[in-house]
Amino acid sequence: MSTTTSTTPTTSTTSVTVAAPVVPTTGALTPLGLDEVRITDGFWADRQRVNGTATLPHVEHWLEREGWLRNFDLAAAGTLPEGRRGREFADSEVYKYLEAVAWELGRLGGDEALESRFRAIVDRVAAAQEADGYLNTRFGRPGQGERWSDLEWGHELYCLGHLFQAAVARERTSPGSDDGLLGIATRAADLICEVFGTDGIQSVCGHAEVEVGLAELSRVTGEPRYLELASLFVERRGTGVLQDIEWGRAYFQDDVPIREAEALRGHAVRANYLAAGATDIAVEQSDAGLLDALRGQWDRTIARRTYLTGGQGSHHQDEAFGEDFELPSDRAYSETCAGIASIMFSWRLLLEDRDVRYADHIERVLYNVVATSPSAAGTAFFYANTLHQRTPGESSPDDEVSPRASSSERAPWFDVSCCPPNVARTLASLAAFVATSDDRGVQIHQFASATIDTVIGGEHGGRFRAELVTDYPRSGVVTMRIVEAPSGPVTVSLRVPSWADDAVVTVRPVDGEPTDRAVTPGYADVERSFVPGDVVELAFSVRPRVTLPDPRVDAIRGSVAIERGPEVYCVESVDLPGGDEAIARIEVGEGVVPVEDADGRLSIELRTRSLADTAWPYGDAFAGSGPDETFTASIAPYHSWAERGPSTMRVWIPIARA
Amino acid sequence: MSTTTSTTPTTSTTSVTVAAPVVPTTGALTPLGLDEVRITDGFWADRQRVNGTATLPHVEHWLEREGWLRNFDLAAAGTLPEGRRGREFADSEVYKYLEAVAWELGRLGGDEALESRFRAIVDRVAAAQEADGYLNTRFGRPGQGERWSDLEWGHELYCLGHLFQAAVARERTSPGSDDGLLGIATRAADLICEVFGTDGIQSVCGHAEVEVGLAELSRVTGEPRYLELASLFVERRGTGVLQDIEWGRAYFQDDVPIREAEALRGHAVRANYLAAGATDIAVEQSDAGLLDALRGQWDRTIARRTYLTGGQGSHHQDEAFGEDFELPSDRAYSETCAGIASIMFSWRLLLEDRDVRYADHIERVLYNVVATSPSAAGTAFFYANTLHQRTPGESSPDDEVSPRASSSERAPWFDVSCCPPNVARTLASLAAFVATSDDRGVQIHQFASATIDTVIGGEHGGRFRAELVTDYPRSGVVTMRIVEAPSGPVTVSLRVPSWADDAVVTVRPVDGEPTDRAVTPGYADVERSFVPGDVVELAFSVRPRVTLPDPRVDAIRGSVAIERGPEVYCVESVDLPGGDEAIARIEVGEGVVPVEDADGRLSIELRTRSLADTAWPYGDAFAGSGPDETFTASIAPYHSWAERGPSTMRVWIPIARA
Repeated sequence: MSTTTSTTPTTSTTSVTVAAPVVPTTGALTPLGLDEVRITDGFWADRQRVNGTATLPHVEHWLEREGWLRNFDLAAAGTLPEGRRGREFADSEVYKYLEAVAWELGRLGGDEALESRFRAIVDRVAAAQEADGYLNTRFGRPGQGERWSDLEWGHELYCLGHLFQAAVARERTSPGSDDGLLGIATRAADLICEVFGTDGIQSVCGHAEVEVGLAELSRVTGEPRYLELASLFVERRGTGVLQDIEWGRAYFQDDVPIREAEALRGHAVRANYLAAGATDIAVEQSDAGLLDALRGQWDRTIARRTYLTGGQGSHHQDEAFGEDFELPSDRAYSETCAGIASIMFSWRLLLEDRDVRYADHIERVLYNVVATSPSAAGTAFFYANTLHQRTPGESSPDDEVSPRASSSERAPWFDVSCCPPNVARTLASLAAFVATSDDRGVQIHQFASATIDTVIGGEHGGRFRAELVTDYPRSGVVTMRIVEAPSGPVTVSLRVPSWADDAVVTVRPVDGEPTDRAVTPGYADVERSFVPGDVVELAFSVRPRVTLPDPRVDAIRGSVAIERGPEVYCVESVDLPGGDEAIARIEVGEGVVPVEDADGRLSIELRTRSLADTAWPYGDAFAGSGPDETFTASIAPYHSWAERGPSTMRVWIPIARA
Repeated sequence: MSTTTSTTPTTSTTSVTVAAPVVPTTGALTPLGLDEVRITDGFWADRQRVNGTATLPHVEHWLEREGWLRNFDLAAAGTLPEGRRGREFADSEVYKYLEAVAWELGRLGGDEALESRFRAIVDRVAAAQEADGYLNTRFGRPGQGERWSDLEWGHELYCLGHLFQAAVARERTSPGSDDGLLGIATRAADLICEVFGTDGIQSVCGHAEVEVGLAELSRVTGEPRYLELASLFVERRGTGVLQDIEWGRAYFQDDVPIREAEALRGHAVRANYLAAGATDIAVEQSDAGLLDALRGQWDRTIARRTYLTGGQGSHHQDEAFGEDFELPSDRAYSETCAGIASIMFSWRLLLEDRDVRYADHIERVLYNVVATSPSAAGTAFFYANTLHQRTPGESSPDDEVSPRASSSERAPWFDVSCCPPNVARTLASLAAFVATSDDRGVQIHQFASATIDTVIGGEHGGRFRAELVTDYPRSGVVTMRIVEAPSGPVTVSLRVPSWADDAVVTVRPVDGEPTDRAVTPGYADVERSFVPGDVVELAFSVRPRVTLPDPRVDAIRGSVAIERGPEVYCVESVDLPGGDEAIARIEVGEGVVPVEDADGRLSIELRTRSLADTAWPYGDAFAGSGPDETFTASIAPYHSWAERGPSTMRVWIPIARA
């Protein structure tokens, strides 16, 4: 793969033309587009290739197979509701797929066949739009519910939010395209500005998403009404505008106004989408109070309501956050979409604040949630991501729709199939999360072999090109070779992960002696008048770490987890003598550390505890039971589990006590 | 309260005339009726008094208020479906209330006002029954679903099962009554024999219950077809006769035939009701294979799927059992009805097998689930019974219907309000679980001050009267004074609980020297030719016990619980310096034991751990944090928690580690 780009980057850093998922008009950092950063090799390049060649066709196949695309044809033919298939939010999966394809086209720099598939679907969507801009296959026709009659569960505005994101992705990667998608979006947006505006329906959608879609559509079109409507939706929520339900209004964040909430709560995807949209609004409206509230919610959610994997959501029942520190491994819901939504929220705060903690969290979620969901082949997915699989379960059939929270193996498609297209759009747009710029230089947030070709703004601005080379996460060495730089001082900032306690930055000038210095977690800044050939190298150890939980996380008391670099590891039964049953009886000695072999594979000494079956699992005789077998077991990154048939698995390993 | 009964007991031990909830025609033990055992004083007498004076009127009030009784009037008036209120199973709450009142009338030996309330409701139910025997307010009329059209969720047969149990209770406590309830039941039963018989609909109800109702109705009426239909229902289930659902067919035990299942699974109430009904059938049909399967399921469920409280059900989502050892304290569902259903299953096995483990489990559930659900005043209830309350929540309003699984305080009524009338019928019939007889004598299973007045069958049979006196669970001393006994040897058997390791039985003859002997857990038999005035005393310590979990119960690793006699204890925030927040930081030193004061109250030395807020709850620095405060805290029986306003609480206390 070429290490330089073949296209000329945009020469402006104004928002509207950046080919990236989030383009604020202000903030500490400026995002770079998919034409400015290209991932060329390694972990994420492989994932992107599989996403493009396998996942995208897979998603389109299932959208057709399940009739969710055909719903639009039926709408255009005027024959709905007969024959409509899928849940109330089925339209949104089509839009998320369109968004994914738009990013993919941007990533590839165009592809004739894919472009034509994209346009064919846009045409089908366009045909279903009504004259006044309304677009939904589930409501509004004779025999269907009336428009906006079920805001709690109907998902009409939610679907439009995804439509808007798709149109935004298209406009940013293919500005001025004649496919018509942007027009579809703005007609729908104009309609809801009227229906839900100041004098309209004083309520919100049960599932936040339209807020982030509207804010981004406003950025792309310059239309302020869209941002204003998004703001109305954000401010209305939390005042009890939706009906109460068994799980309480917290489910859809309608329990407490967003400015007063202390943590994310309720349905984890809804909560993060809302927070992402609210961040967009706060940034665009320079609303410091709202931004502070959102930062506080992010802090508390990360400190108390997030799994080691970065996953969020502890309740299966309502796909929701639990209370503080309620993080059971075996009932981890950690929905794939919640992880993606958390990246959306975090990335927006990172652009605004340049705080490395947001980038650290994004990395954690990418490696341990987003990378975990799809199979290596890219055609099966985890919807929920448990951290402890107690029984091996059954294989999900290749040709059947599965229940969404089935965790024992990945499944090709779900009755609620939000996750596959959400993974697809995230992987297709992943290069946009690698680097940013500001008036001083360029910041590297995620490590991948990549090319960067952008224009730095500000006093010393100008074109900046560089090559990143790394085999991360296998090693912690990242090399950045400058290909072109503006004259004068430029600051290159490399993220030093929070766990990297031995990081060193070395500058190897093309004509001069290397210099190095120790750097601590955060952004390591290298300011220099770079010339082509200069190299900046960041190096830190990715030796395995033994991680303990805060004692308030009751579910994993007395256990440890193994991490290596950004990857959380797990023990899988297929690597244990004793098989599926043994996962319930393994222990690790206090102080035992994993060993890494020459190929980078980890193993650790474990024991299985001898436990007789008892008639009652509570008493005074358990503490004394001893180990019956000690052995060395391979452990593997969590994202790679469940690729070898049904198995049992655990991330947290109990510590053997005397 | 009188310590002798004023009525003459029945003079027969044949099944049909025993005033008890379960009356098999065969088995190791013969149940005694509510006219044969009367609880006179102490823990359960208090509960029964509150149940009769407060809970029963409370339940009737809410049945009227919510319109669930009025549904029958609307059915009779022919105006349904308009105005029908409540969920699809609302009829069943009326039937459970009728059952509770029938037992209460039996317990009281009659009560004119209550009798008249009972008859008034029976009349309203009777008026709603259709000519062919069909009885349900939710199905079968124009504008409603067709009869039997929704077996998965419609609950029609479930409702009839409760109707049958009500009619059985009435016939056993008021044989030959002219109120008409038994006729209503048999007409409905005759109808379903036709509709669901060998040539009828080859399916079952999504919620097991009709099986146990039919089996008991068969016992009361002598009609074998009812038992045969119950048997058909039990055998059909597990073969995939119901539609699959997101949680799988295990939810309604339709995943595996009952003879092949290894443990209870799926919805915990359904699973236990089914097992109870299947036990009735297996006993009546002398089906040793089915009985063995049920015993095995009971064993594994107790060994691996039951909370320390005896509660069952780890999943909120589907009110279901989790996998083996998946028993999170904070997400314990432990539905009150599942506890009651587990007593129903266990009691049937006890009558068949005379195995003390069933009686031990019944006691555990009675003290820690059934006694926990109702408030001291008897007018608010826990539906779910968590073992760890993390946040204090809000008080449930006195005049509102609450979501069922709200755990922070008891609520007066629920949208799904199965638990209040289930508690009511259990407490009203509780005396029937105290003692049994066989041809050798009398067995005491539960300890309460009570009178026994029965007729022992067999060779040396004859009238047997005794008085039980105890302040259990405050002490472990139970005295049984013989009032009348047949001539010749009689064996009195007293249960020695599994945890009673120092039990002594003393015989104090009215004319002779006392003798004593140590006895071990199980039934302590005292065989003797008793004369009036003879006393048998069982004495064991109820000193506090420190209990550890099996290491496979991950959720409570590194924690201990305190038990005293049959009662599980808990720490409640209102007893802690530091209040609600402190519950997350308490620890108990290894080896620390509770102290009992002169009033029987327990306290224990605890520490609160000093834990700074961290940005991320996983790392390597937690193990070293030390205690910042040591104090002595009162602990109280779990069943008494949440009586002092919203609070936090935990049963399992983390052990302080160096």
